Amino acid sequence: MPVVTIHLMTGYDAATRRRIGTALTNAVAGVIDAPPEGITVMMPEMDPASYMRGGAPRQPGAPRPDPAELVRRFLETMEARDLDAARAMLAPGFTMTFPGAQRMTTLEELVAWSKPRYRFVRKTYERFDSLQDGQTAICYCFGTLSGEWLDGTPFDGIRFIDRFEIEGGRFTRQDVWNDMAEAKARSA
Amino acid sequence: MPVVTIHLMTGYDAATRRRIGTALTNAVAGVIDAPPEGITVMMPEMDPASYMRGGAPRQPGAPRPDPAELVRRFLETMEARDLDAARAMLAPGFTMTFPGAQRMTTLEELVAWSKPRYRFVRKTYERFDSLQDGQTAICYCFGTLSGEWLDGTPFDGIRFIDRFEIEGGRFTRQDVWNDMAEAKARSA
Amino acid sequence: MPVVTIHLMTGYDAATRRRIGTALTNAVAGVIDAPPEGITVMMPEMDPASYMRGGAPRQPGAPRPDPAELVRRFLETMEARDLDAARAMLAPGFTMTFPGAQRMTTLEELVAWSKPRYRFVRKTYERFDSLQDGQTAICYCFGTLSGEWLDGTPFDGIRFIDRFEIEGGRFTRQDVWNDMAEAKARSA
Amino acid sequence: MPVVTIHLMTGYDAATRRRIGTALTNAVAGVIDAPPEGITVMMPEMDPASYMRGGAPRQPGAPRPDPAELVRRFLETMEARDLDAARAMLAPGFTMTFPGAQRMTTLEELVAWSKPRYRFVRKTYERFDSLQDGQTAICYCFGTLSGEWLDGTPFDGIRFIDRFEIEGGRFTRQDVWNDMAEAKARSA
Amino acid sequence: MPVVTIHLMTGYDAATRRRIGTALTNAVAGVIDAPPEGITVMMPEMDPASYMRGGAPRQPGAPRPDPAELVRRFLETMEARDLDAARAMLAPGFTMTFPGAQRMTTLEELVAWSKPRYRFVRKTYERFDSLQDGQTAICYCFGTLSGEWLDGTPFDGIRFIDRFEIEGGRFTRQDVWNDMAEAKARSA
Amino acid sequence: MPVVTIHLMTGYDAATRRRIGTALTNAVAGVIDAPPEGITVMMPEMDPASYMRGGAPRQPGAPRPDPAELVRRFLETMEARDLDAARAMLAPGFTMTFPGAQRMTTLEELVAWSKPRYRFVRKTYERFDSLQDGQTAICYCFGTLSGEWLDGTPFDGIRFIDRFEIEGGRFTRQDVWNDMAEAKARSA
Repeated sequence: MPVVTIHLMTGYDAATRRRIGTALTNAVAGVIDAPPEGITVMMPEMDPASYMRGGAPRQPGAPRPDPAELVRRFLETMEARDLDAARAMLAPGFTMTFPGAQRMTTLEELVAWSKPRYRFVRKTYERFDSLQDGQTAICYCFGTLSGEWLDGTPFDGIRFIDRFEIEGGRFTRQDVWNDMAEAKARSA
Repeated sequence: MPVVTIHLMTGYDAATRRRIGTALTNAVAGVIDAPPEGITVMMPEMDPASYMRGGAPRQPGAPRPDPAELVRRFLETMEARDLDAARAMLAPGFTMTFPGAQRMTTLEELVAWSKPRYRFVRKTYERFDSLQDGQTAICYCFGTLSGEWLDGTPFDGIRFIDRFEIEGGRFTRQDVWNDMAEAKARSA
Repeated sequence: MPVVTIHLMTGYDAATRRRIGTALTNAVAGVIDAPPEGITVMMPEMDPASYMRGGAPRQPGAPRPDPAELVRRFLETMEARDLDAARAMLAPGFTMTFPGAQRMTTLEELVAWSKPRYRFVRKTYERFDSLQDGQTAICYCFGTLSGEWLDGTPFDGIRFIDRFEIEGGRFTRQDVWNDMAEAKARSA
Repeated sequence: MPVVTIHLMTGYDAATRRRIGTALTNAVAGVIDAPPEGITVMMPEMDPASYMRGGAPRQPGAPRPDPAELVRRFLETMEARDLDAARAMLAPGFTMTFPGAQRMTTLEELVAWSKPRYRFVRKTYERFDSLQDGQTAICYCFGTLSGEWLDGTPFDGIRFIDRFEIEGGRFTRQDVWNDMAEAKARSA
Repeated sequence: MPVVTIHLMTGYDAATRRRIGTALTNAVAGVIDAPPEGITVMMPEMDPASYMRGGAPRQPGAPRPDPAELVRRFLETMEARDLDAARAMLAPGFTMTFPGAQRMTTLEELVAWSKPRYRFVRKTYERFDSLQDGQTAICYCFGTLSGEWLDGTPFDGIRFIDRFEIEGGRFTRQDVWNDMAEAKARSA
Repeated sequence: MPVVTIHLMTGYDAATRRRIGTALTNAVAGVIDAPPEGITVMMPEMDPASYMRGGAPRQPGAPRPDPAELVRRFLETMEARDLDAARAMLAPGFTMTFPGAQRMTTLEELVAWSKPRYRFVRKTYERFDSLQDGQTAICYCFGTLSGEWLDGTPFDGIRFIDRFEIEGGRFTRQDVWNDMAEAKARSA
């Protein structure tokens, strides 16, 4: 049955409210086995001047970027090797872990790591999964890799999965798994 | 600011309500950049006889199992090679994809696949991430593998990640990525 | 979509709450063409000490009798010619209007009116319809009459309809229509 | 005490909201013996984009026509013998029952039934009573008939009552009772 | 924790809503020892046509004047000896009590009382405290008096406190205490 | 019209809820000129496990002592010259100001101040007025003093007013005004 009411300050556009409504619906459905049509979400809006906490008026929090969009943009920027743009999306303390590599902290390390492995790689996405944990957004994406080995041989259909952590709209952590070594072993 | 109110039928224990409260808090925090202490969740409870939809009384939906617990139980059951118990946790149509393997549909295929690869494997978990998407629960877990290769050489610290889809409390899909081939290539 | 929430003081039993929920559902459905499963009614309950109007605590109003039950009881009492019991159900100023009769104010008048018409009459009910208008409950019932004419000839299947007004649990007005004259004219 | 809150999507005009408020007030007053000034109805409105059921946005249901207005229009159309207009107001499966007649299904039958009874008839309304039962609206109206008998003699003051059932804005059933036979018997 | 929701009719400006929010926050904080940031006030607004009590639409009550502003204006008017303007602020039955005086009912009495005491007096305000008790607003103000004694000697720093009762926006009672006699005794 | 809803955690007794209800009613009545019977307060209660702020469960804040009772107790303790008990009611940094005295910080100073003024004094209370301002409770009480001058002459009917500030249940400030000097001057 659950009926969820969230009081919002006015100012969130319909798309943001739809994100909120979907997130709340999923939050409830994740814990209670209710029929979908039994989960109602209402989002009445209030003038900011109609809200007070601790006796003080408050401003509405800004909408957060969609983690899946952030990830897609970052990965496209990296595919294009636009390191400056990609670097601007990283938070201080960012770390990344790739198959067979030490934990890396700079994009230059990653480029160096990939050099002896392949000429280039493109991602085809099957799906993005996002969730929030406290102040941290987590986003997974998986699909397949295509590209060329160092010798120019093309490859495709190699499964991959990336996991990202995001805080304050910037990436703090990336973990990557894929079947590249499996594919190489097989082709060897 | 958001204040979230969810009207529940009485009968959910405090732990379930805490799961709901946490899920709703995260749902909001995932879309709105509000200070944590600004997200309030209230879960007033009502006698089921005080609720009606479409003119008909309704029963409260049962709490769903925690996906992370389901996954942990399944993986432990598989490590122990208790195939009957594991099979009982699968939904019809279950598929699984492992590195370098065709899509498999039975646990026996998986056992056969692993035979020429290692003697046994144990999982050390770093983290579980769960989310809900409509009627489907999705759970990721990642960490490291330890065990013995076929020749008895021990291994450990091999990164892995599993992704599960769950419907109606049973698994419909498992996808696995790991660095086993990378590790083998390296040790070769 | 409408979601109706009615805050009640604790103390109304489940049957009364179901009456309230049904009445509210019908009230909405009478004005808005919403799909039935889209009308949700929630009836959270509060300790009377948690309610105040005009700075004064209040007591919950007693449940009103179901008008259809009142009417059925009154009509059965009249069929049994238990005039004392029936009279106790009348409010001061009660009036009744029957086919071909002046407006009557006492049950004795009614008995006198019926004497030259039939020996006795029984009612078979097809349906009761009740509604509330301000402080006045209105109840219709219709169905068929059976009984005996003065000469002992039996009759049945004669359509009738009664309309009652009720205030404070007592009848203030009764209006009756039926096909008795039609039936007599036909049998003549 | 009851405080009724109905969350509506924006778009219902003030007259419709007044109908809703009155219907909810009467719904509560019909079950609980509360002082009138103790029944509060609040109808906060929400942007349709702020509402979701089953994870899907919804559109507000259209306001239903007022049953009393539908009935009045139908009866006026019939008095004017505008059968085409009247027929357009009938649902498939419409039936009507008049004093001394078989159940009829077409307006032509009704016209044929009335031919040997009176030249014409006009209705003076005392009152309309409407209620909703699930998806069915029910409307009663009563008052007096005037007109001319076949021989041109005028009549008036003959009591009548009509009962209508309405679904989806069209009539599915009409039942009529009146004192015509009583009046004729008396005048004979 | 308390979350306070007050449903208002639209039309109150932001300043009035802030007064309401502050008053409600203080009302809660006066009874419950909650951390300030734990008291949330929400003031959703509704079209007046979306509200009904006792089946009747209602108009929003006008904002009351701020008692502290009323008091400040009255005292300034009195300091300026604009008796007509001050008198217009008094309710019938107004009484005032000053140190060493009989209860007075007219401003002329007050002027007569002050004549043998000082040439003039000015107030410096330290603080206004207002509260509401049913239909009566109560306002205290205190601070210091400065002015000239009859012989032209100036004085200042003499503590005073005034207490006012206000009904319907007009003063019904004034009580004054101060250290004038103490100061005179000291200077004697 | 305003309808105030305050969601409380269960555990506040009826007397505390009545204090809350009265405080909220007065808070609204102080800003909006609504008819008293138009101000409704509802205080639904929730299991503490049904409440979360910032993703963390919370405990209900303890009820605060009634400022008027604290003040009455303190003044009675001082009249009885039970300085230890009175001192226990003072917060660090407590200050008090009496007619004709420097600002004092200890009860001993007060006793010393009163010694040359009267033998003893008793208070008759006309009224207590309490309000809350942020974390500070403010309480006024006024009435008349009776007692004996140093020469044994009795006195009574001398007007007084006390103002107290309270934080965390202890007094931080006391201000006193009265007509003692006026009375002495008059009796001189």
